[in-house]
Amino acid sequence: MEEFSVTPWEVRGRVDYERLIQIFGTQRITEELVKKVEEIAGESHVMLRRGIFFSHRDLDLVLKDYAEGRGFFLYTGRGPSGPMHIGHMIPFLFTKWLQDKFRVNVYIMITDDEKFLDEPNMSLEEARRWAYENALDIIAAGFDPERTFIFFDTEYIGKLYPMALKVAKRINLNTVRAVFGFTGETNIGLTFYPALQIVPTFFERRRCLIPAAIDQDPYWRVQRDLAESMGYYKAAAIHSRFLPPLTGEGKMSTSKPESAIFLHDSPKEVRLKIMKYAFSGGQPTVELHRKLGGNPDVDVSFQWLKIYFEPDDAKLAKIEEDYRSGRMLTGELKEYLIERLNSFLEQHRERRERARELIRLFMYEGELARQMWSDYKP
Amino acid sequence: MEEFSVTPWEVRGRVDYERLIQIFGTQRITEELVKKVEEIAGESHVMLRRGIFFSHRDLDLVLKDYAEGRGFFLYTGRGPSGPMHIGHMIPFLFTKWLQDKFRVNVYIMITDDEKFLDEPNMSLEEARRWAYENALDIIAAGFDPERTFIFFDTEYIGKLYPMALKVAKRINLNTVRAVFGFTGETNIGLTFYPALQIVPTFFERRRCLIPAAIDQDPYWRVQRDLAESMGYYKAAAIHSRFLPPLTGEGKMSTSKPESAIFLHDSPKEVRLKIMKYAFSGGQPTVELHRKLGGNPDVDVSFQWLKIYFEPDDAKLAKIEEDYRSGRMLTGELKEYLIERLNSFLEQHRERRERARELIRLFMYEGELARQMWSDYKP
Repeated sequence: MEEFSVTPWEVRGRVDYERLIQIFGTQRITEELVKKVEEIAGESHVMLRRGIFFSHRDLDLVLKDYAEGRGFFLYTGRGPSGPMHIGHMIPFLFTKWLQDKFRVNVYIMITDDEKFLDEPNMSLEEARRWAYENALDIIAAGFDPERTFIFFDTEYIGKLYPMALKVAKRINLNTVRAVFGFTGETNIGLTFYPALQIVPTFFERRRCLIPAAIDQDPYWRVQRDLAESMGYYKAAAIHSRFLPPLTGEGKMSTSKPESAIFLHDSPKEVRLKIMKYAFSGGQPTVELHRKLGGNPDVDVSFQWLKIYFEPDDAKLAKIEEDYRSGRMLTGELKEYLIERLNSFLEQHRERRERARELIRLFMYEGELARQMWSDYKP
Repeated sequence: MEEFSVTPWEVRGRVDYERLIQIFGTQRITEELVKKVEEIAGESHVMLRRGIFFSHRDLDLVLKDYAEGRGFFLYTGRGPSGPMHIGHMIPFLFTKWLQDKFRVNVYIMITDDEKFLDEPNMSLEEARRWAYENALDIIAAGFDPERTFIFFDTEYIGKLYPMALKVAKRINLNTVRAVFGFTGETNIGLTFYPALQIVPTFFERRRCLIPAAIDQDPYWRVQRDLAESMGYYKAAAIHSRFLPPLTGEGKMSTSKPESAIFLHDSPKEVRLKIMKYAFSGGQPTVELHRKLGGNPDVDVSFQWLKIYFEPDDAKLAKIEEDYRSGRMLTGELKEYLIERLNSFLEQHRERRERARELIRLFMYEGELARQMWSDYKP
């Protein structure tokens, strides 16, 4: 049995997602559930159809609430520890799609406090600078500025704190030690932090759906144990896998630049990284590859196309067939990915530039932002 | 050896103050130090002269800073768990006197968050209501509204939080377990709270002097371990004994109304409580009392006069002599205290009524308050 570990602060080893569903006690997203979402949305989304979002809690109840007119809202977030890579965009791109299709509010928490507390060498000023930079990338996903509220913890704390206290009073040290693995060396800021991350699930008296990577689930587990006793809904969640790192195992990491493609990587850097580091399912020589074919199941370039960059099912099927049969070489597969990646990044950066103007709407002046700064009583 | 325990949340048994000085590692306030304060202040204060403030940390350095023009500032606070009794006024009355004599800024933290987190049955709304009510009593001590800032944690958190994070990052669970006795059942709000109580010691880049009851010292011990590495002064403190409860042992408690005289007690209630509950050092019968005399050292009424209500040394000496010799009966001693108490309370309540007008100066509009809401950058 392979060793792996998934916590909000670390992903280690080769993640067995089926085992995670068991360990975390979540539900697999069935074909049937995917169909239901597609029916209501009137459209299919590649990340759902291809199983990148693979697990959930109460997604069925969210759809029921929607169908029966009670509605729901979306919540996700980002720990601003540094520049964002393409893996970080997965929950945002999917959340933006859900917002489009269901026309619901989205709350995006930028946890500058948590990143400061968690990273020994990061100053609070640095965490805040990354909060701003990351917000631009998030806005580039295309959210509706009137229905989306982006906030930095250290700035919005005045509104968050009273509810965080009510949450914190119901969570003891035994619980956070068991759920998050805190030890005697954990600082008392990080120990309190889970209370804050739970607060936005109570921003509305409706069900909250959280699209996020599976490593964030421990927070929702704690939330679900106390939500109803506080008069709110248990949080619903839809969990994504990690985009595999170029190098194959664990999750992409800011501290290992060769493992990830960053949103700011130049076309040249992208080419270099994919060519040099992308773990290949191909054979050692062209001759052998033509004869034996490649293995797309372990080939990172193919996986990236599948998860993210080739939404066209027919095209993807053709690539898979060609690669498996040996007709397509690793170099050709990589070229294809590089082109897709660079086109995505170019578009992203254009949007990111426009985000510098839009950010004040998301944070202060848009309809939802104004409501959250004035009317919202914690 | 008698068992006793002093923590910020509990005082149990008959407190041995000499032992506390050893356990906490503080300094005794010497005659010489008292003289020094009196010299600079140009006046003597009953609570210092009579040893109610009995222990300190770096008070000598505070006086040196003052003498050499570097100045200092005062910080104290209140956990708003319910109505205040006369014991709660000790640090405020003394702090007000220090402010008058040294003309320095005073910061008063009302910890509505902590009380909510600590008291199982208290709602946050209730804690906030007590915060307001208690602030009126505190203002009645007579602080300078231009040099005093009173704030409620849940309201001022936006300014407190960034520095609280910097403090929290330097304190781990092992430390708060050792210093505050936190256990697995302690909630994660209370675990974080020490970081907040430390923040005001960094409001100015000068030495901070904290007049407070000795049970608060564990916070300052933690502060002193990290202050200098953050570029600030170690907090200085001046510690008071507890006003003994009417019933003799431990500390006065809101949950045992017979143990305390509340600031809202009517003259009739005061009379009743003193007559009925004040532990007496007198003899069982008048005859025996005349013959053997009373014991002022254990007599609560006498102790209250000594600590608080009879600042005139000559008058106090006469009472002590008369009581010890049997010339003064317990009933007479109690009558004297009742009269003193009721006159203090009457004056207090007049000032408290005026505080309803003044509170906006202390919290928002006075010179120091305005600075702390606008200029202060945490």
